Amino acid sequence: MTIPVTVAWTPEGLVVLDQSRLPGEERYLTLHTVAEVADAIRDLRVRGAPLIGIVGAMGVALAALEPGDDSAASVRKRADRAGRLLVSTRPTAVNLRWAIDRMLEVTQRTMPDARRLTDSLVAEAKAIHAEDRAMCDAIGQHGLAVVPDGSVVLTHCNAGSLATGGIGTALAPVYRAHEAGRRVHVIADETRPVLQGGRLTMWELTRAGVPCTLIADSMAASRLRKGDVTCVIVGADRIAANGDTANKIGTYQIAIAARHHGVKFMVVAPSSTIDMATADGSAIEIELRSPDEMLSFGGKPTVVEGAGAWNPVFDVTPHELIDAIVTEKGVIEHPDAASMQAAFGG
Amino acid sequence: MTIPVTVAWTPEGLVVLDQSRLPGEERYLTLHTVAEVADAIRDLRVRGAPLIGIVGAMGVALAALEPGDDSAASVRKRADRAGRLLVSTRPTAVNLRWAIDRMLEVTQRTMPDARRLTDSLVAEAKAIHAEDRAMCDAIGQHGLAVVPDGSVVLTHCNAGSLATGGIGTALAPVYRAHEAGRRVHVIADETRPVLQGGRLTMWELTRAGVPCTLIADSMAASRLRKGDVTCVIVGADRIAANGDTANKIGTYQIAIAARHHGVKFMVVAPSSTIDMATADGSAIEIELRSPDEMLSFGGKPTVVEGAGAWNPVFDVTPHELIDAIVTEKGVIEHPDAASMQAAFGG
Repeated sequence: MTIPVTVAWTPEGLVVLDQSRLPGEERYLTLHTVAEVADAIRDLRVRGAPLIGIVGAMGVALAALEPGDDSAASVRKRADRAGRLLVSTRPTAVNLRWAIDRMLEVTQRTMPDARRLTDSLVAEAKAIHAEDRAMCDAIGQHGLAVVPDGSVVLTHCNAGSLATGGIGTALAPVYRAHEAGRRVHVIADETRPVLQGGRLTMWELTRAGVPCTLIADSMAASRLRKGDVTCVIVGADRIAANGDTANKIGTYQIAIAARHHGVKFMVVAPSSTIDMATADGSAIEIELRSPDEMLSFGGKPTVVEGAGAWNPVFDVTPHELIDAIVTEKGVIEHPDAASMQAAFGG
Repeated sequence: MTIPVTVAWTPEGLVVLDQSRLPGEERYLTLHTVAEVADAIRDLRVRGAPLIGIVGAMGVALAALEPGDDSAASVRKRADRAGRLLVSTRPTAVNLRWAIDRMLEVTQRTMPDARRLTDSLVAEAKAIHAEDRAMCDAIGQHGLAVVPDGSVVLTHCNAGSLATGGIGTALAPVYRAHEAGRRVHVIADETRPVLQGGRLTMWELTRAGVPCTLIADSMAASRLRKGDVTCVIVGADRIAANGDTANKIGTYQIAIAARHHGVKFMVVAPSSTIDMATADGSAIEIELRSPDEMLSFGGKPTVVEGAGAWNPVFDVTPHELIDAIVTEKGVIEHPDAASMQAAFGG
């Protein structure tokens, strides 16, 4: 099974797959500064909540390595500044904040010198990457039961290998089922306006040899009505303490349609996506991106000049519409404040 | 208020606005043969159920005028052949079949000569156009009550002036409300894959001075949850005898979301859209178009090579999800087989 390399820490710099060029071009960028990392995240060259976390952590490590006053205090200052910059790039995903917080905790430890602090930061970023890979595998294992032989899985956006440092979150159970020889077919929403489903999910599934069919976002309910969809599996950018889940815009609409048709709707994400400090979905900040993403395509205007557009990047699916949340720690059926507290309340 | 001319019968031929080039270019095509008319409909240069009916009727008239054996029998034969060709171009919309049937009824009348038959066919096509304009006005009048001052109307696809020979169907109440000085704001779904909402609805509303905002199809439920949408108004391509309604793919999904949020969902269409011979939505043939519409954009591939897509053009919204059907004859609340039979059965 071919899984793309999305990120690599190399002696030449931080190498990332430029996802904005897929599927036309498989091009890697080498990033040398935290400013370059921030731009890559902001421009969606690197996207997917878990992957942004990994790359954000590596961005802090890059900042530590940047030239400057050679003291531990100076490294700490550069890391802090980098963390603040990176956290501001995408406000909704919580994994980024979680990863940056882990890096900044390292800077709080007593270190004999700058070299030792820098080494520790690089090691922490690599650990976050390695843990993400292991997390994807664990999620795949926990989710395997929901993808029996003959499954048709509807998914939205891209929560596959391209969104992580491993085999993905929402798609991890699909890949594990495929590897186990089960027949599984994925219906992928194209996911306007940035087309992560059409451009990315279709690309990685096709490369991995998993049968897949593209639909427009507007077709999900019709497909559910057709009766051949076994379950809906989506990722998450942030899960509140009661199970309310922020994910790519359009997720909420599919959750409503899935409930209407009695089809199981599952959120599959790493536990780092869970934000127990946010009581419910109403407190999650929803990133609004430029209307330009909707007013033109490939640089060519598709809408009359002067038109306005509303472009929220995420929506919140209330926990009542979610049949299960799957993390690397296990499966929570019918998530609510009590079951989330029991599982993740610490 | 500026309403575009979508179709005109002229001495030079049948002039139609090429809607596939909007909003970038406002270009008119002059069609001289029924083959050209069929191509224009098939290629979506002319689209919108009522407009296709008008243009289809004019296509039959063009066929009658084409050179050939100068007998009434020969004209009749050309008209019959044209009717069959045109009906095959778009299988779901019923207005086309309805308009062609009207034209072919003319050929069944006893006529003294070919000239008289041809004149009658041209007159019938012009009558269908004029009636459509009047129908739009009547619909606008009947629907005015559902668009009070301060309304926010969510619509899908394009059921405006561009879809008709007049001020539109779903948008007719909006235009009438705007003319009456009421504040009305339209939220337009962009309507993948052909973007009729983004390209056409936004264009005609902006030209007419009606405030409007574009959203992606996946954003409708989020917008409904936001709480500012007064009602959803869509057009129809075919309405079955029990009120089940075929309309542009995505309509069904919005109907489910509207019901979930307790927002009124209305179908606004001419009575020629009603097909009392079709018992319910399950008997409506749904046109499948080429996956290519979803796999590339502006000739540039957006999805990995070899990928497949499902591309149904319409879906069926069951009458249970429709709060009202508005036609030029009036308003049917909570449509079902009984109320439809009472209004259109006879």
